[in-house]
Amino acid sequence: MGNNYRSIFKWGDPSHEEKLNKDLINYLKEKFKLSPSDLNEKYSPGIEEIKLKKISKLPPSIIKSFKRIVGDDNVIIDDYDRAYHSYGKFYLDLLKLRLGKIDSPPDAVIYPREENDIIKILKICNNKDIPITPFGGHSSVTRGVETPKGGISLDLTRYFNKIITINEINSTVTVQSGIYGPDLENYLNNYGDGYTCGHFPQSFEFSTVGGWVATRSAGQLSSGYGKIEDIVLSLKMISPIGIIESIDYPASALGPDIDQMIIGSEGCFGIITEVTLKIRRYLPKNRKLLSFIFKDYSNAITTLRKVSQGQFGSPYLFRLSDPEETDVSFRFKGKDNTLTDKILQILGYKPLKRCLMFASVEGDYDYTRLVSWKIKHIAKKAGGQYIGAYPTKQWLLQRYSSSYLRDPLMDLGIMTDTLETSCTWENILPLWFGVRNYIKERPNTICMTHISHCYENGANLYFIFLSPIKKEDPINDFSNFHAGIIDTIKKNHGSLSHHHGIGKLLAPWMSMEIGVKGIGLLQSIKDYIDPKGVMNPGKTLGLKG
Amino acid sequence: MGNNYRSIFKWGDPSHEEKLNKDLINYLKEKFKLSPSDLNEKYSPGIEEIKLKKISKLPPSIIKSFKRIVGDDNVIIDDYDRAYHSYGKFYLDLLKLRLGKIDSPPDAVIYPREENDIIKILKICNNKDIPITPFGGHSSVTRGVETPKGGISLDLTRYFNKIITINEINSTVTVQSGIYGPDLENYLNNYGDGYTCGHFPQSFEFSTVGGWVATRSAGQLSSGYGKIEDIVLSLKMISPIGIIESIDYPASALGPDIDQMIIGSEGCFGIITEVTLKIRRYLPKNRKLLSFIFKDYSNAITTLRKVSQGQFGSPYLFRLSDPEETDVSFRFKGKDNTLTDKILQILGYKPLKRCLMFASVEGDYDYTRLVSWKIKHIAKKAGGQYIGAYPTKQWLLQRYSSSYLRDPLMDLGIMTDTLETSCTWENILPLWFGVRNYIKERPNTICMTHISHCYENGANLYFIFLSPIKKEDPINDFSNFHAGIIDTIKKNHGSLSHHHGIGKLLAPWMSMEIGVKGIGLLQSIKDYIDPKGVMNPGKTLGLKG
Repeated sequence: MGNNYRSIFKWGDPSHEEKLNKDLINYLKEKFKLSPSDLNEKYSPGIEEIKLKKISKLPPSIIKSFKRIVGDDNVIIDDYDRAYHSYGKFYLDLLKLRLGKIDSPPDAVIYPREENDIIKILKICNNKDIPITPFGGHSSVTRGVETPKGGISLDLTRYFNKIITINEINSTVTVQSGIYGPDLENYLNNYGDGYTCGHFPQSFEFSTVGGWVATRSAGQLSSGYGKIEDIVLSLKMISPIGIIESIDYPASALGPDIDQMIIGSEGCFGIITEVTLKIRRYLPKNRKLLSFIFKDYSNAITTLRKVSQGQFGSPYLFRLSDPEETDVSFRFKGKDNTLTDKILQILGYKPLKRCLMFASVEGDYDYTRLVSWKIKHIAKKAGGQYIGAYPTKQWLLQRYSSSYLRDPLMDLGIMTDTLETSCTWENILPLWFGVRNYIKERPNTICMTHISHCYENGANLYFIFLSPIKKEDPINDFSNFHAGIIDTIKKNHGSLSHHHGIGKLLAPWMSMEIGVKGIGLLQSIKDYIDPKGVMNPGKTLGLKG
Repeated sequence: MGNNYRSIFKWGDPSHEEKLNKDLINYLKEKFKLSPSDLNEKYSPGIEEIKLKKISKLPPSIIKSFKRIVGDDNVIIDDYDRAYHSYGKFYLDLLKLRLGKIDSPPDAVIYPREENDIIKILKICNNKDIPITPFGGHSSVTRGVETPKGGISLDLTRYFNKIITINEINSTVTVQSGIYGPDLENYLNNYGDGYTCGHFPQSFEFSTVGGWVATRSAGQLSSGYGKIEDIVLSLKMISPIGIIESIDYPASALGPDIDQMIIGSEGCFGIITEVTLKIRRYLPKNRKLLSFIFKDYSNAITTLRKVSQGQFGSPYLFRLSDPEETDVSFRFKGKDNTLTDKILQILGYKPLKRCLMFASVEGDYDYTRLVSWKIKHIAKKAGGQYIGAYPTKQWLLQRYSSSYLRDPLMDLGIMTDTLETSCTWENILPLWFGVRNYIKERPNTICMTHISHCYENGANLYFIFLSPIKKEDPINDFSNFHAGIIDTIKKNHGSLSHHHGIGKLLAPWMSMEIGVKGIGLLQSIKDYIDPKGVMNPGKTLGLKG
């Protein structure tokens, strides 16, 4: 695979083409009435060589200054690197790359080697009004790394990828922000008696600690380990006005929490360079995996809630597929119309009513025993049938795989996107119902939903939709549909985001979410810390610029 | 008791005089060589009638405007009410009141009845540059409610004390900010099957939800329930530029966390009027109480750490007295030289080495059994002797009593104050050692320390000192000694505060704590939200004004 668009938008190894399984293809073929040409000719596969229409706007003298700071090899202005840093992995990003549409690439990609490099680069950018956008694992789904005003894409993954220190007494690890999830986790698992950070977002393989922190991300086990804002103990950020650095106190009362202003700042305030994270003992031998099937969604949700409010500890993975997701999952895995399926139906677990629930518990041996026993007990009382560890084990084995499916689905001419939102328990069902109804109003659309990330006071709803691409106007078709979903989420009391963040994508709804005064508050921080507005401009987070 | 100073500074019912027990008096008499006159004549008891030197600076026309808003009875400019709202309950506050020193009372005390009142009052204050300082339960120990520039003390306890709603599905309660701890807790305990907020600061009886939130307070059971910033789900604040209000999402990714900017804002950004808090089931029947005695401090600290990092759930109360506090506790309770004491000594639990540990576990029945069993197991391995539930039960019964002792101690001419700080586990012993050494360098000084509020990554250290008042220059003597303690905390890597907050007292150290850029960041929010600087001026939090 050469320097083509496909190598940029593909999830994972660009040389490996993911294949959809036969059951899924058959299901989609029937559902979407795919034609032989849909099945055999990839939709806009993006195999053309990249050629940007825009050359770098940066004057040679500036490029030279940057090269003097980081070395010639770490300032790149070629088309491929600039194209690579133009987008994240939002559906529209992939679509535009398939269509060869790169309207606003960065003018240069810079790989800083150390903090001093960043300080010097920021100084130049600030003096010369050059936009600068931090870039991590390339997995933003919120248009967080786009450079609508060009400028510098500052990629931290090449050099800022080191473990700085691990402290077993304090139970912390301090890392540079550009380290990828697997590198951090492998290091921790193999250090001493073994540790874990416990943060496994869907993008785990291709996201960095800095990205996790900048976007307020959540891992699949966040019901137990917490979201990233619960895991960060302290951090360091280089901003246009200087360095902001916090201390790793376990808790404090030092006025408004500055860490919590930087977590979620999405590159608008500065470059997060170092983070100290909580770590926990890595104890896979104690892990309990549980799976359940419920006759109906409502009782299953009640189980999620009662477990989350049970005051006996918490599950780590806790996930419930709605009836349609459960149905697709049965078909996709070739489980429909099997003996198991028939027995389940006889027992009252009917298709398009029944729901699958996955749970895991981690930690101390006796604790995982207790919590898993409690979950079983509560599920049973709500009519949930325990179906062993196996389905959850299978789910965990393929936990990152769904991201790989987008490319072959789009090859088939199918658009797909995921939206996530959180709300209190009493709003979960109406929110699910409202958003699902909106999505299903579109003809020929699959809508799968799961609840993941459960808390005492509510949960996260995660919507996945699949629908044929309207090939005559794919960008507007998607954009309008997507905006309608967001509107529906807001109308039904869901948050604009639970863990993807806001970026440039959801910025237009921010004033509805945090109020005009709330935006003003964020803007006041921005104006102080980035007075010339060079950090990630383009209305990220709803800010000016 | 009339309108005298004593009625203001006394902790609790002004008509009831707390008595020290005989064992304690004998101990102090011997330790501090108290004279008969020390014992019989109260030191500056503050029984003079209050007479302020400063009359209200507010012009009658302004007073009239305020009265038009809230009614005549809710705008008070008499000496007693203004004196009452001049100070919190910091040692220097009490001392100054004993000395009849009120340099800067508010010009008026206003009791707003509803949000509209506050909006209108703020408008006038903002237009006329009148300082306005929110006032809750009167228990600040950080000079948080002082009015160095006069103006309005806005007391929320008279009307803003209602439960707005309780939501059993979401497991939340929404309250007005001026509600006192016991009113909230009694309501919750008696609602339906019974709930609890789980927040029990030392000041519980005389502090309000608004005060808890404004100062980032912690309750005695925070190892289990979390600090107030973990308990708040959403809030509403009226600021000079308008209302900031958040939504009760269980978790979200909406950029920098605005709630966490308001929590800890100590009245500098606006008036917090409503708060939605997490609630939990109130299950006293499941509560487990545990007490231990250790041969030495270091092994006891290791026990705290190993329990906190055990990944089996957590204790709720978790508290360890250092050797001197343990010693005082034995004497104070008349336990020294008893048979128990002698047996303990024979077993190797020597005075001034041995340490007492208290723990409680709340929640589900099986959970409290598991966690308490785990704590016992870990304590035993570290040489801790389990001594039953009784000592912890006794401690809980008198959990709020130590605040009542300050007045009779000061009557004896003894100064006493408490300081609290947090740090990571590896710094606990050096921090304790450094601060204790500094305190003990002062001749004739008792220094008792406990570790409370334990977390996975560190804990809170709480220092209490007692020493005879230097009657010839009591204010400077205390202030210099106190400043030296703070310097020593900072030199030994402790936080400036874990749960008291900053106020005007600790403001001079803030730039050392969060950096000049950190202060700038808070100031930028302040400048936006309170452009004329009317909210709680006087350098609270290290801000300008």
